[in-house]
Formats: sequence, C-alpha cells, structure tokens
Amino acid sequence: MPTGAATKPEPAGREFFTTRTVAEALNGFRPARRTRAEQVPLSAALRRVTAEPVRAPHPLPGFARSTVDGYAVRAADTYGASEGLPGYLTVTGAVRMGPVPDGTGPDVTVTPGSAVAMPTGGAIPPGADAVVMIEYTAEVMPGTIEVVRPVAPGEGVVRADEDAAEGKQLIPNGSVLRPQDLAMLAAAGVTSVRAHTRPAVAIFSTGDEVVPPDTQVLKPGQVRDATASALEALVTDAGGAPAYGGIVADDPGALEKALRAALPASDLIVVSAGSSVGTRDETANAVAALGPPGIWCHGLAIKPGKPTLLAESGGVPVIGLPGNPRSALVVFRLIGMPLIRLVGGCTSPPPEPSTRAVLARDLASATGRLDVVQVTVADGVATPLFGASALLSVLTEADGYIVIPEEATGLDAGTEVPVTLYT
Amino acid sequence: MPTGAATKPEPAGREFFTTRTVAEALNGFRPARRTRAEQVPLSAALRRVTAEPVRAPHPLPGFARSTVDGYAVRAADTYGASEGLPGYLTVTGAVRMGPVPDGTGPDVTVTPGSAVAMPTGGAIPPGADAVVMIEYTAEVMPGTIEVVRPVAPGEGVVRADEDAAEGKQLIPNGSVLRPQDLAMLAAAGVTSVRAHTRPAVAIFSTGDEVVPPDTQVLKPGQVRDATASALEALVTDAGGAPAYGGIVADDPGALEKALRAALPASDLIVVSAGSSVGTRDETANAVAALGPPGIWCHGLAIKPGKPTLLAESGGVPVIGLPGNPRSALVVFRLIGMPLIRLVGGCTSPPPEPSTRAVLARDLASATGRLDVVQVTVADGVATPLFGASALLSVLTEADGYIVIPEEATGLDAGTEVPVTLYT
Repeated sequence: MPTGAATKPEPAGREFFTTRTVAEALNGFRPARRTRAEQVPLSAALRRVTAEPVRAPHPLPGFARSTVDGYAVRAADTYGASEGLPGYLTVTGAVRMGPVPDGTGPDVTVTPGSAVAMPTGGAIPPGADAVVMIEYTAEVMPGTIEVVRPVAPGEGVVRADEDAAEGKQLIPNGSVLRPQDLAMLAAAGVTSVRAHTRPAVAIFSTGDEVVPPDTQVLKPGQVRDATASALEALVTDAGGAPAYGGIVADDPGALEKALRAALPASDLIVVSAGSSVGTRDETANAVAALGPPGIWCHGLAIKPGKPTLLAESGGVPVIGLPGNPRSALVVFRLIGMPLIRLVGGCTSPPPEPSTRAVLARDLASATGRLDVVQVTVADGVATPLFGASALLSVLTEADGYIVIPEEATGLDAGTEVPVTLYT
Repeated sequence: MPTGAATKPEPAGREFFTTRTVAEALNGFRPARRTRAEQVPLSAALRRVTAEPVRAPHPLPGFARSTVDGYAVRAADTYGASEGLPGYLTVTGAVRMGPVPDGTGPDVTVTPGSAVAMPTGGAIPPGADAVVMIEYTAEVMPGTIEVVRPVAPGEGVVRADEDAAEGKQLIPNGSVLRPQDLAMLAAAGVTSVRAHTRPAVAIFSTGDEVVPPDTQVLKPGQVRDATASALEALVTDAGGAPAYGGIVADDPGALEKALRAALPASDLIVVSAGSSVGTRDETANAVAALGPPGIWCHGLAIKPGKPTLLAESGGVPVIGLPGNPRSALVVFRLIGMPLIRLVGGCTSPPPEPSTRAVLARDLASATGRLDVVQVTVADGVATPLFGASALLSVLTEADGYIVIPEEATGLDAGTEVPVTLYT
C-alpha cells in the first residue's frame, strides 16, 4: 500500500484558496467516474439506476383484452340501439379468465347477431371488435340479451400492443426504478435489469476532539462523531453504499494513508474534517497528495458550509466537509448527494419533497453567497430556526429548509418561498 | 391450522355492498393493530419509527465550545475596542482540540487582561465568557494581541447545554428517523433506540389468468403478475416488510386457507384480486370468513380503484385491491401506505414529494368521487395522461398525479394544481 512519503503535497496556503459558488460546483465539478453495470433481479431493483434502456421483449398485454364486465360483440350490431329501441343479440358462449385448455385462446367466436359473455381482462374472442358493459345490457330470455347503448369499434377493449409494442422503450437509461416501473417490467416478463452498481462511498472522520458515538462519558473538549451516522444515511438515500472508515487521528500522514488505502475500492470519498483551521489544512494537504487532477475548490460560497473542499483523484471525487456537523450535512445534501447520483449513472434524479410557504420574518443574506436556512412549516408558514451553526437541534427541529440564492440580499417576510422538506 | 369450515361467511351480495369515500377510509378505517417495539442499533435506525420519545441522557454539547477560530477573553476586556483604539491583551496560552492529558478540560485560564488562543470547537477555558474572531485581532508583538472589535458575553460561544439540556426530548414518539436525527442521537451518545418493528405485510395475488413474472411465453388470456412486484416496493417505501405469498388459484377455499395461514404472522394483508367480478366476490367471501369485525367497505368512491375492499380481522387490516394493476397501485398509494405507517406506529408521516403546476387541459369528474389523474410535468405545466385503466404505461410515463377532490365536478385548464411526484 503506498504511503504519502513518495509524493510531495502542494501547500494549501491562502494563495491557493479557491472559492466557488454552489452552482459552479454543481455544473463545473464533474468527475469522470461512473460505476459499472451489473445484472440485478427485479426483486432487488427498487431505486436502482438503469445502465441501458429497457425495451419490451413482446407486445403488451399480448392479446386484446376486455376492460369491462359485459359482452363481446361486433360493434356494427349495436348501432342505433337505445333504451326505447334495444338491439337483441344471441349469447353463444362465455370467455373465462385464464388460458383455454388447448392454449390457443378463446374457444368461442362472435358472428353477426351474436354476443359472448366477457369478464374484465378476458381475451376478446375472434370476430368481436368491442365489448358492451353489462350495465347496458339485460338478459331478456335465456340465451338472448338486449343492448340499450351502441358501442364503437375498440370500445371496452385494450389492443394487444396498446400498453407497449414489441421493442418499445419501457424505461430510459439512467433512470431510478420506481415501484410502478417494476410493475411494468414484471408485466413485460423482464425479470432482471442492467443497473449501475451502487457507488461505494468511503466516509472518514477526522479531528482529535472526535470520539465514537458509543463513548459513554466524554472528557471536556471531546465530541461524539455525529456526522458519520447521518452521512451513511444520506449516502444510502442517494443510492450509494456507505463504508465507514472510522475516525482518523489529526496526523498529517495518517489521513493521507487512510485515503490512499480507500481509493481503489471507492467511487467517492467523503472526509468530515475537524473543525479547526489546522485540521482543515491537514485535510487539504492529504487530499491534494492523492494525485491529479487534485483540488478543485477549497471553499464554497455557502452559509453554513464555507470550508468545503472538492477534489478529484483519477476520476474519483473527494469531498472534504466542514467539521461542524450541521454545516457538513447541509453541504452534503446540496453537493454530495447529487455527486453520488452522477457517479451512479443517474441522469434524471428523482424529485425532492417540497412545498411552498410564506416566510414568517425577514432574512438577510450577502450577495454572491447561497444561504441555507432551516425552517419549521405549519399552516403554510415557514418559520426560520436560528442558533449557532454548531447546534444540531436546529436540524432535528426543522421540517425542511429554504435557499436564499446567490444573487439575493435577503428575503422579506411575507414572501412565498419554496421549502425543501426533510423526509 | 384452522380452515374456513368452522365459520359461515356472510354473503357478499349486492345488498351488502358498501361504498366509502377516500376521506372516510383514511379517517374511519382505523384497525387497532400496532407493531411491537424492539431495540434497534443506530446503524439500522434510518426510517424506523420511534416507539417512545428519545431524550438527551446528558447535556449537549456537554461543555462550552468556541464557534470560531480566535481568542477566548473576558468580554468586558474588549468593551470600547475599535480600529482606531484597539484593546491589548496578553496571550497566556492556547486551547488544543481534544481532551487535555489529565482529562479535566482546558489547562489554561483567562484572567483580566489576558486571552487564550482558541480553535473552532475548542473548550472555553475557565475565566473566559466570549471568543473574539481571529479576523478582529492581530498579533502586535509575540504574546500580545490587539482587539479591534468588542464582543458581548456569550459571543462566539455555544453553551454546554445549548444544543440540548439533560432530559430534553430529542425525537418525539412515532417519528420516522431522518438522517439528521441519527446525527443528533450519535452526538448524544444514544446508540440504539426503541422502534416499532416493521409491519409484516403479506401480499397475495389471485386470478386464474395471472402467472408469475418469469413466465417467458404467455398463452392467450394469461397476464404476468405485475402488481405484486410494485406492491413489495411500495410496502418497503412505507416502512413495511413485504412477504409475497404467491398467486392463489381462483378457488373459494384456497384463498381463505392462504389468508388464514398468513394471519398470525401478518400485521397487514393485501390481496390483489382478480379483475373479474366473480373473483372479486370470491375474494370478499374469503376475507369476510377470516373473522370479526370483518368487511368495512366493498368499494371506494375513487377512479380508478372502485373495486377496493377494506376489512379487519382481529385488529389486522386486510385490503382487497382491484385486479387492474394500475388501479391497484393508485389505491395502494392512497390507502395502503398510510395504513402501513399507522400499523407501524407512525404518528407524523413524512411529507410526499410534490410541486405545483398549471393544468394543460380541462378534466371532468363526478362529484362524490375522488379522481386520480396521472400527469407528466414539464416547465410548470401538468399534462394529463390518458388511456384505459388497464394500461401500466400510463403509470410509468407519469411524473406524478393530481387528485380531483370528491366535491369537484372537474378542473379547468389553466388551474394551478398540486402534483404529487413519484420518486
């Protein structure tokens, strides 16, 4: 395993400090990494990302079906039928659900003046081109029905290829598979799909003050690692497979060694940096040493979350998050989750839960910086939550957040704003 | 295992046919079943439902911390300081991150006229009541800084119990745990939570026409089971644990036997009924035979999805879904998923993704019936998708759906409507 000894990290001094906006990061930071494709059975395909378009292997439903309970007829035999002047048809049989014993389809046919009883979903018998709903018929004597409404050809019928013609694209490439997509694939007899593997996301924590969450009694100055648990959850939500690499000591060599060891098996690396400027500098040095193209930005024009580092090593994105857990989670939602989807082959990310609400009070902001403000939402009113950025309770009490865009100097009370909701 | 022989099912004839509205079902159909509580480790707690409030076992963060890089001071020593008339303080030490060797906290104190260098997140030393940001200081000679802005007591400091006082409720009972909630619990040293077990949801398909999805070649009249795959996904999305019971033959005794066998181990049972009226009647008979209180409604005032059956047996809800896969999935989202959350102890369901869009065309509806219309959404315009209710492609092409409420006779083109988005 290579150590940092062989490389000479670029100094991360102030002269190299590059700050980017969130929009620049989302549009401009595009590491090449994409996960490979694998065959995934339908039972495990929920929320997986397709690696190729899925096409219908056969026409669907495959045979013309009735959409109602009623009688299969020749539509022409019903023209002019009304309550006052019903048409009369001879019932020559009934279609049953399921295949007929010889497997060839309905064993009854519809001829001029005849009708065949149909269950919803049954196969339309030869000769019929429509189905009259049972509500518009009555059995006037055994074997004879009257029809009180005309039907047009095709009425009450789904064509054999109406749901999908053979070869039709059922699901585009790069899509996150939803429950109804699985229904369509099952209907089409597609029992497995080519899907991108879940991005393997290595998560490291740093900072001499950080101790594992199961530390029962803290010494003054120690804090439990809050960020890692939430990062694992957010990685999972974004379709990734988190791998927690533990808490790395504030030692310049240790972090670089840990990152290098994780690189070959990772599609993305996240470092939750220590909160002090020294630890952040050490993180930047360790990340810069991983290899080209290296650090893309040392800071983001976002509040909270400015001390965010974005880098790439051999196509693998590396995110250095602020040491403050709340800032780290805000940034990871905005930047990290879209990156995981990108690396995982997703070209149309699913929508985020959102609502619109009226802002309860004025909010100030600085132009050129995107502000993320946590809010509670009740009765259509969004009330901002304040408190030092170190407070996690602001995140747990929030129902969602609003974004004050870079170009705004603030938002006035009474403005209707979109609120992204936490699920 | 008991069979249906000992009970006498009530006939499900037309005279007993009870239709309810969706609102009546959501508010009035409230089976008593709730899943039991179990201890769940934090690493497995994402999206689990709390079975009791979670309280802070200790104050958080547990010690007063700096929120900035700078100098810990007595605020009074900075009063009146300005660019023109800086205050001068003697630097008597530095706080380092992490615990001091003896474990008692910072080994430096702040006395009148002195300052101690602080990293962000460091423990405030005794004697200090504020932290001056490094940006407002300068080292004028070794060991002496000038301060050019005053700080108020508490500035730059998070109090020892500011995130949570000891015993404070961190997470209410009945909540779905979100990523940031896991962060808070980790910070508080809560490594496991009491959570409701996931509702065990048995899923059955019926209908002689229904065959497994891996059936490569269909005989005319046969359809692959599309509903079950999607139901398993929706059950999972709602926090349940799906158990697929397979396709049960259209045989009055077989379905009742299968449901009875599933009842003891199930918190909810879903039957995707055959599409014909005969199969629906058989499903109703089998469900009615399971035991009191029995069938709550035989139909819902919803389109699509009218042939929906709701029942309860010994507290366990039983849902009979329409045989049409699209109708079944529409109803299951509206009725089934909230029921799974209810049974799973959830008292505040997470928000659904939604947006607002302008309706592209008029939609007709009947009063007293709730209509669910699939739509695509682009550039703020919602375009309805039409097609026979038997078509699954309408669901896979949709970005979401709009609801035309019971009291409306339709919606006009140009109306702004809320759209529930599929994820």
